[in-house]
Amino acid sequence: MHQTFDAAIEMNLLHANQRGAEHNRTHFDRWGITCINLMSSPGAGKTQLLERTLEGLRDLKIAVIEGDMTTELDADRLRQYGVPVIAINTGRSCHLDSKMVAGGIHQLEQGHTPTELDLVVVENVGNLVCPAEFEVGEHAKVALLSITEGEDKPLKYPVMFREADCLLITKTDLAPHLEVDLDRIEANVRQINPNVVIFRVSAKSGDGLADWFDWIHKTVTNQANRLTAHSMATQSPV
Amino acid sequence: MHQTFDAAIEMNLLHANQRGAEHNRTHFDRWGITCINLMSSPGAGKTQLLERTLEGLRDLKIAVIEGDMTTELDADRLRQYGVPVIAINTGRSCHLDSKMVAGGIHQLEQGHTPTELDLVVVENVGNLVCPAEFEVGEHAKVALLSITEGEDKPLKYPVMFREADCLLITKTDLAPHLEVDLDRIEANVRQINPNVVIFRVSAKSGDGLADWFDWIHKTVTNQANRLTAHSMATQSPV
Repeated sequence: MHQTFDAAIEMNLLHANQRGAEHNRTHFDRWGITCINLMSSPGAGKTQLLERTLEGLRDLKIAVIEGDMTTELDADRLRQYGVPVIAINTGRSCHLDSKMVAGGIHQLEQGHTPTELDLVVVENVGNLVCPAEFEVGEHAKVALLSITEGEDKPLKYPVMFREADCLLITKTDLAPHLEVDLDRIEANVRQINPNVVIFRVSAKSGDGLADWFDWIHKTVTNQANRLTAHSMATQSPV
Repeated sequence: MHQTFDAAIEMNLLHANQRGAEHNRTHFDRWGITCINLMSSPGAGKTQLLERTLEGLRDLKIAVIEGDMTTELDADRLRQYGVPVIAINTGRSCHLDSKMVAGGIHQLEQGHTPTELDLVVVENVGNLVCPAEFEVGEHAKVALLSITEGEDKPLKYPVMFREADCLLITKTDLAPHLEVDLDRIEANVRQINPNVVIFRVSAKSGDGLADWFDWIHKTVTNQANRLTAHSMATQSPV
């Protein structure tokens, strides 16, 4: 967040974004879609994780909304897995906001029947700061932290780690080549967010991916159950 | 940059920041100080590089203005090298701006005689997007890109790479453990910024650091010569 401007303008910006996020979430709920927002520093491995996820979760119908400042490099990588991928170029903007994602949802609607989808993954712009403050209509926030980034990052960039529902500690295959203490990373994360679900994964070796896939399945099931319960409650006679 | 708000407000914000940056630069010039702005993703190795730089350049009088969202972890690491370190916590803000750095300069003035310094290094908040758009009064911008971040980053985050005067490709000691082509990284950087000076360095092994130290010496000398020439021009009789 840029804080050089007036506090009232800043609040208006965040409120407008929040309204847009709720609007997007209403759409997802109506279609029975679970949406997760994938966030991290550049190069923490979001796209590679998504590649492994699209390979590993063939039982789910998945679409991707792919945010990048420029290029469709990541979108093109993911299109090879035969899923709908909507690319959003943010230009100079350092994060996706709810309005941009609304545009992505609209594009998705043009070419596909949204009710056939189970899961939309939003891959955010690589930035460990700003995306955490701009909800896009997701049901869960997933943060990635590569072990090459250092143990202190949860303490130095607390907003992202506080907001995350699930944290993936990535590139664990590189641990033998680094002086890094993975338990220390987890302890630092827990200091900021005691309840976050944490998995250690390597998209390269496959270690830990099964737990991550389980978490996605559970999140999608919980979301479906919540919607069914809500629907029954609103339809039952008074 | 957050682009959700009004374009006029955005321009005002950037113009106000630019005026502040010029003000800071005037101070640096008056004191004969060269200022460089160190920027990268979180975990690309800015602080470790600075540690090696403070060890390696004992002939220069250096101070550091250290930007972090929270904590003084990095500032404390650098204080061990016996140089003045001013810590600036940016709170929710994703970059240092010229006003924050002005505050840092003011603090530096309180405890030290600025004319005795040769170099002020501003270590920015870890963010590959926003810091590139907010000058702080520096004479040169230095960007770091860790080889763990992937070859495509210069294309995906062009603003930072376009703005950089010098690019350090860091953590080269990890190359044997990664599938990464360093020539490809350089080619991608050159596509965005043909004239940038590029060094491949490892703060861990020391490889390439001598070239980086030479570049700093040259930058400090050029800056001193520029100021002397300017001073002679304005003092010579008409």
